[in-house]
Amino acid sequence: MPLALCRVAIDTYRENVAYLHRECDLYRAEGFQALSKVEVRANGRRILASLNVVDDVAIVGHTQLGLSEDAFSLLGVEEGHAVSVSQAEPPASIPALHRKIAGERLSRRDFREIIQDIAELRYSKIELTAFVMACELGELDREEIFYLSDAMGQVGRRLDWHEHPVVDKHCIGGIPGNRTSMLVVPIVAAHGLLCPKTSSRAITSPSGTADTMEVLAKVEVPFDELGELVRTHRGCVAWGGTSELSPADDVLISVERPLSIDSPGQMVASILSKKVAAGSTHLLLDIPIGPHAKVRSMPEARRLRKLFEFVAGRMGLVLDVVITDGSQPVGRGIGPVLEARDVMRVLTNHPEAPMDLRQKSLRLAGRMLEFDPDIRGGDGFGIARDILDSGRALEKMQAIIRAQGEKPFDLDNPELAPHRFEVLAPRGGVVTAIDNLRLARIARLAGAPKAKGAGVDLLAQIGDRVVQGQPLYRVHAAFRSERGFAHQCSERDSGYSIGQPDEINRLNVEF
Amino acid sequence: MPLALCRVAIDTYRENVAYLHRECDLYRAEGFQALSKVEVRANGRRILASLNVVDDVAIVGHTQLGLSEDAFSLLGVEEGHAVSVSQAEPPASIPALHRKIAGERLSRRDFREIIQDIAELRYSKIELTAFVMACELGELDREEIFYLSDAMGQVGRRLDWHEHPVVDKHCIGGIPGNRTSMLVVPIVAAHGLLCPKTSSRAITSPSGTADTMEVLAKVEVPFDELGELVRTHRGCVAWGGTSELSPADDVLISVERPLSIDSPGQMVASILSKKVAAGSTHLLLDIPIGPHAKVRSMPEARRLRKLFEFVAGRMGLVLDVVITDGSQPVGRGIGPVLEARDVMRVLTNHPEAPMDLRQKSLRLAGRMLEFDPDIRGGDGFGIARDILDSGRALEKMQAIIRAQGEKPFDLDNPELAPHRFEVLAPRGGVVTAIDNLRLARIARLAGAPKAKGAGVDLLAQIGDRVVQGQPLYRVHAAFRSERGFAHQCSERDSGYSIGQPDEINRLNVEF
Repeated sequence: MPLALCRVAIDTYRENVAYLHRECDLYRAEGFQALSKVEVRANGRRILASLNVVDDVAIVGHTQLGLSEDAFSLLGVEEGHAVSVSQAEPPASIPALHRKIAGERLSRRDFREIIQDIAELRYSKIELTAFVMACELGELDREEIFYLSDAMGQVGRRLDWHEHPVVDKHCIGGIPGNRTSMLVVPIVAAHGLLCPKTSSRAITSPSGTADTMEVLAKVEVPFDELGELVRTHRGCVAWGGTSELSPADDVLISVERPLSIDSPGQMVASILSKKVAAGSTHLLLDIPIGPHAKVRSMPEARRLRKLFEFVAGRMGLVLDVVITDGSQPVGRGIGPVLEARDVMRVLTNHPEAPMDLRQKSLRLAGRMLEFDPDIRGGDGFGIARDILDSGRALEKMQAIIRAQGEKPFDLDNPELAPHRFEVLAPRGGVVTAIDNLRLARIARLAGAPKAKGAGVDLLAQIGDRVVQGQPLYRVHAAFRSERGFAHQCSERDSGYSIGQPDEINRLNVEF
Repeated sequence: MPLALCRVAIDTYRENVAYLHRECDLYRAEGFQALSKVEVRANGRRILASLNVVDDVAIVGHTQLGLSEDAFSLLGVEEGHAVSVSQAEPPASIPALHRKIAGERLSRRDFREIIQDIAELRYSKIELTAFVMACELGELDREEIFYLSDAMGQVGRRLDWHEHPVVDKHCIGGIPGNRTSMLVVPIVAAHGLLCPKTSSRAITSPSGTADTMEVLAKVEVPFDELGELVRTHRGCVAWGGTSELSPADDVLISVERPLSIDSPGQMVASILSKKVAAGSTHLLLDIPIGPHAKVRSMPEARRLRKLFEFVAGRMGLVLDVVITDGSQPVGRGIGPVLEARDVMRVLTNHPEAPMDLRQKSLRLAGRMLEFDPDIRGGDGFGIARDILDSGRALEKMQAIIRAQGEKPFDLDNPELAPHRFEVLAPRGGVVTAIDNLRLARIARLAGAPKAKGAGVDLLAQIGDRVVQGQPLYRVHAAFRSERGFAHQCSERDSGYSIGQPDEINRLNVEF
């Protein structure tokens, strides 16, 4: 009983959904159940999908089979083509999933099978959530985390740059501003190390590196052009097809994000699988700690570092970890345009360049330069500073921007969102703490990253002395309503603590 | 920015889904994310739903908001009505869910809030799965299982029969055939005890009590008529609106079933919450054990019994547990018509009545009769037998059938599905074991319960001596294709073991 394929233009967000009309003969005969798995075959291709039942012929007719956008493009067959549908055996890895749910340790092969099925969207959202939860609650041991990371890196596209070393940096996130990649990449590339930085857009933060870079240049560079571009300029800051690298990661994130799951195992697997698939051989990892950072104490940071080191070692990736000060945002701006302004001020050695961003970027770039076998340990920082101060980093950045596709940007007059307000110090004293999460939330409410010019511009940092009524930060919102949301949020809690100098909780970190 | 409500006729299976067109101004302005929670308000009512993005105006227009069937009926507002939509705060119980994910013990209040949100479909499938998995892997203690059961029983409709006792029986399932309820209810009701048996349809088995009863009578009796009917006849075997009793149970099952999760805690909460909501004061619980039953050993059965006793006690429900022989199907037929035939043969004292079904039903009915304070312990069985043998049980069953709405049924010539085949003994010997799961699977492949006349008719039981080529069972299928599926399955493994008498694994159970 073949049916005609039709595309149901619903974005089911990384879940294959098949639609059958309730009056379809096949549906009636086969005794399908709601949400049961069906196998759809056409042209020698086949996919698994979860079944939804429809009562409207405008969505799917009695002799049609509908597929959601994800499923339709995965099957890769034209509308109207004959498809056959049958009740599917569960994906091959489901017995392994059940063993994990029952608390067993899984083998390398189990993880490969599970990740393969997940990457090909054979898991329903329910099965996917069960896997994530079983890993979260069943506590993967570090060997299992390696199996998971390795399996994720093996599935999907893998880049090979045919040279050594290929360096990259990554921050585990959670610190607003902190746009070090856009400084580190030109410094390292100017020195000659290959640094193909595939960046991501913001998921829950007010801006990702790709969002900020997009203020200055196009970031959606197709894979094919990316290779040529990186080989010519030794670096890039692009967001081309990263979803083809470790595709299972994006599928897992589709349930981890709504559940706010961000466990060490998941973080390690997500980061290292992408880097290995992107062809990196050396990685510098930044773990910021602070009272409002993802990692809140030095012992916790050290545990995470050991885990990253173990898994990276097993994957054949050279890893250096730096633990940094995450007690406040890095740089002054939070939001794409504001952050691009900070980055360009540092690159141009502007008098108002934020020194914290400059200093952190130089230290990170210095450590990355030391991946070069010809650079002595300890010499990296000085070389990085020379490259920045001499204007070679700026030159390199301009070359990369032109290669990716330059966008107009006026550093003296950046296009900031028009609806603004300032948050003032309620009393005099010293800034003793800044709540990263609060400021990120205010910047998002103001419209970042969708509105490029929206965000928060910090006017005081921890340790600064302020008088009553002095502005602590300025908020830029794209719309009046968003200004309202952000204002309300800052009224409830500005995110700034004002007190005495001895109340500052100084962190004793490497830099 | 109000939108016009439209119904999107997709059955999303107990998940509220809202649909917005990608080009809808509101979608663009609000920065909604795929699958993010939105609040839909109209007419003073509001619901939460997960957002799906649509690219087809035939499904939802630029100025419309679509709701899936579940969500549309829950909001209860007409199509075209103005609705407003906004990004929703997560349901109030999400922090409690996160505490459970983090391994904490939850309070009675936490469970109430979570179950309330689940019953009102405020949880996405992802959140629902996370809750089920956290309960499964986090191992609820028995006090928490009570909180969960109690919360489930409190939400939704609750029946009050205004008399005492109100008796019910329940089997934890897994044994094909086993249609004791349809014999126990008329016996107990004929004695005069109130026994409002709300039955369920099959979920994964070849027939539920409601499916089998439906061969003889209508089972979808509206709540309002049910009360009158039960008061007049002292009993019923109906399936009216049981989803209004403990509605959270049905929502939880929508993820437990695809994951094959059937943990003790979940089973206790599901069964006891429904019974308490249905107004029962006394419950007889049947736990069958056997090598292919849900419970496979006596120690496991005892642990489960203690858990049921603890939770029922805390809920104020009088509970008696019987552990029964679940080593093979009970009765000869598996499938609605075949089981109805067995039941009617027992009620009419037919010479071919299956003695195992008669015997088990009498023992269960006897134990239930002893819930009557006027009956001495040990006298129940004899009274039940008198009621059955005298024809009073048959009379009562006929009255209940007429009251619910009689259907034509010819006991001498029941309408069995036409495509049949027999499975023969591959060699001579004694039947030493029968695999319940295998026979249930063959009956389902043959078309049961959708095709009422489909199923398996057993011709030999454990302990029977058979010669080579003698039929072990007959399969009735509705269609040629289904006959093929069932035949293939029985060829791979018939489910029968033939061997020597000393290989029979006799269970030492109460009855």
